[in-house]
Amino acid sequence: MAGSDRIVVMVTSPLEPEHVERMAGAYPDRVDLVFRPDLMPALRYIGDHGDPAFRRTPEQEREWHGLLREAEVLFDFPQHERFPLLDLAPKLRWVQTSSAGVGPLVHRLGLQDSDLIVTTASGIHAQPLTEFVFAALLFHTKKIAQLQRDQRVKAWNRFSGDELAGKTMAIIGPGRIGREIARIARAFGMRAVALARDADPARAEALGVDRVYGRLNLLEMLAEADCLVICAPQTPETVDLLGPDEMAALKPGAVFVNIGRGTIVDDAALERGLRDGRIAFAALDVFREEPLPPDSPFWELPNVLINPHSASTVDSENAKLTDIFIRNLGHYLAGELDQMGPLLDKKRMY
Amino acid sequence: MAGSDRIVVMVTSPLEPEHVERMAGAYPDRVDLVFRPDLMPALRYIGDHGDPAFRRTPEQEREWHGLLREAEVLFDFPQHERFPLLDLAPKLRWVQTSSAGVGPLVHRLGLQDSDLIVTTASGIHAQPLTEFVFAALLFHTKKIAQLQRDQRVKAWNRFSGDELAGKTMAIIGPGRIGREIARIARAFGMRAVALARDADPARAEALGVDRVYGRLNLLEMLAEADCLVICAPQTPETVDLLGPDEMAALKPGAVFVNIGRGTIVDDAALERGLRDGRIAFAALDVFREEPLPPDSPFWELPNVLINPHSASTVDSENAKLTDIFIRNLGHYLAGELDQMGPLLDKKRMY
Repeated sequence: MAGSDRIVVMVTSPLEPEHVERMAGAYPDRVDLVFRPDLMPALRYIGDHGDPAFRRTPEQEREWHGLLREAEVLFDFPQHERFPLLDLAPKLRWVQTSSAGVGPLVHRLGLQDSDLIVTTASGIHAQPLTEFVFAALLFHTKKIAQLQRDQRVKAWNRFSGDELAGKTMAIIGPGRIGREIARIARAFGMRAVALARDADPARAEALGVDRVYGRLNLLEMLAEADCLVICAPQTPETVDLLGPDEMAALKPGAVFVNIGRGTIVDDAALERGLRDGRIAFAALDVFREEPLPPDSPFWELPNVLINPHSASTVDSENAKLTDIFIRNLGHYLAGELDQMGPLLDKKRMY
Repeated sequence: MAGSDRIVVMVTSPLEPEHVERMAGAYPDRVDLVFRPDLMPALRYIGDHGDPAFRRTPEQEREWHGLLREAEVLFDFPQHERFPLLDLAPKLRWVQTSSAGVGPLVHRLGLQDSDLIVTTASGIHAQPLTEFVFAALLFHTKKIAQLQRDQRVKAWNRFSGDELAGKTMAIIGPGRIGREIARIARAFGMRAVALARDADPARAEALGVDRVYGRLNLLEMLAEADCLVICAPQTPETVDLLGPDEMAALKPGAVFVNIGRGTIVDDAALERGLRDGRIAFAALDVFREEPLPPDSPFWELPNVLINPHSASTVDSENAKLTDIFIRNLGHYLAGELDQMGPLLDKKRMY
């Protein structure tokens, strides 16, 4: 039995034992940690947050919901629930999520008007995602596919390559990820520009970019983009942001990288841009439908690189997430709710 | 006829017309520029310095040697000469080369003890070579080959990736190229270490690395290397620097990048390291024999990426080289020989 000052913390997605142990050991006098791998999908790889195809048996489901009813804190949102989360977990006061872009999930779980505290993983994916952006951009710019083709037939064809220095990186979604991309772009001697709400020089400086464009000047920004990176969350403002007009405005030969959300982009317009060569190369980590269906044209386009939404996942992810959670747990237990973070803005939904 | 204060400047390798025009227009009252594309190999790509298979007819060769006899300044070394250069060009006082690693050529042309001024292209390749190093390193680290294989069979296999942050970049050849590689490595959150003559902390700071190792501690440095980059020139000190003992000392799973010279590395030891997996991946831009012979095992090793010695060549190269040449030409004409650079150190041969 938990004492009156004890709380129940429940882990709702798969997690490696070493992180569970750290959580359990952080405040043993105050926390009852519930971790039931037998009621969750098996870990498929380090950092896996669960196979979406997993289903509990009716008996397992009853046990799972019984546990949720007692939980005050959840580590990660439980996926696939068909009921409002606060009906399932009436004692719930705080959820620590394992990703940043949880706006649509919060909406689906009926939480947008609740006073539930939602802290996110915002920030921990900035560095692995930035590495993927530059892996993709350098793959194209340094003509690695051409090197692979020549190597296959043992052809020694000397050539003059292209370079990042002097090119323009355009960023949609200048949060922590966008700022990290801008920082590395500038280290490579690129110019960085970004779409932002406040298109003034002070905002550009705060974001670490050379210029910011407001929504009304999006087409102008696209015309300058040697590389366009989308790292925005899915919100009412970003859905369908890039349609046929925007694709047609892109600088010819641009590289297109989407590590944000698939719903931001009009797939037909993107496909057309890739086929007619206006978009020279695209690296796509996110899609409207995931897993990407076998009949999607993107699988077979020669100038597309597909990542199965794993660009943000690295072996060190859950250790960082556990650090964030334990720090927040300390503040929560001490009643320092204003010290917890990063918080989800339920209005902006990220 | 040239006036008594006029000098003859001869361009000895292919060059795009716009750069020739800039050279001819820089000091028209003092310089007679000789540019004879009809006596040189044709340009195969932007920045090409000439097909080594090209041969002049005997008649062309006589005309070519007649022109050399009058030249006081050469833009680039003439290749394939079988006689000491100063016998062919007795008025020669200065050569501006198109690359940095010209030590062996200077030796072959019998110039190591002359007082000929040799200015090099040292520095202009640092940025494109650094971009290639990170293209190769990120290709491996972000598992791009695995993404390509999965995409070919439309397989949506989520996975946990690796990352650059926290890894160690070891650099052999901490000149301008090495310093640029260290700078980008640190921007990505890597630790940078380098082999240097003076293994003291002040030297590390000057090079922008976290630690320098002397020659006696090379094996220790190799054991720490998640990525080893060779960007040293070919000199008596570097030839055969990396043999079987050095390969065996490398940290298991290391990435190996050679953008220096092929003669620095023992090919058999490198091949063994790649086959037994100690070296996870190699990107090779330089080889003992170039073009790389068809029977080289490197063509077919699945964990090798071959670049036909074009990693340093980018479309902007000759514009930068022309800038250097025109600046040096101004100093030369003004008698400010001490202002010319970057100078070849004929002792160290780079």
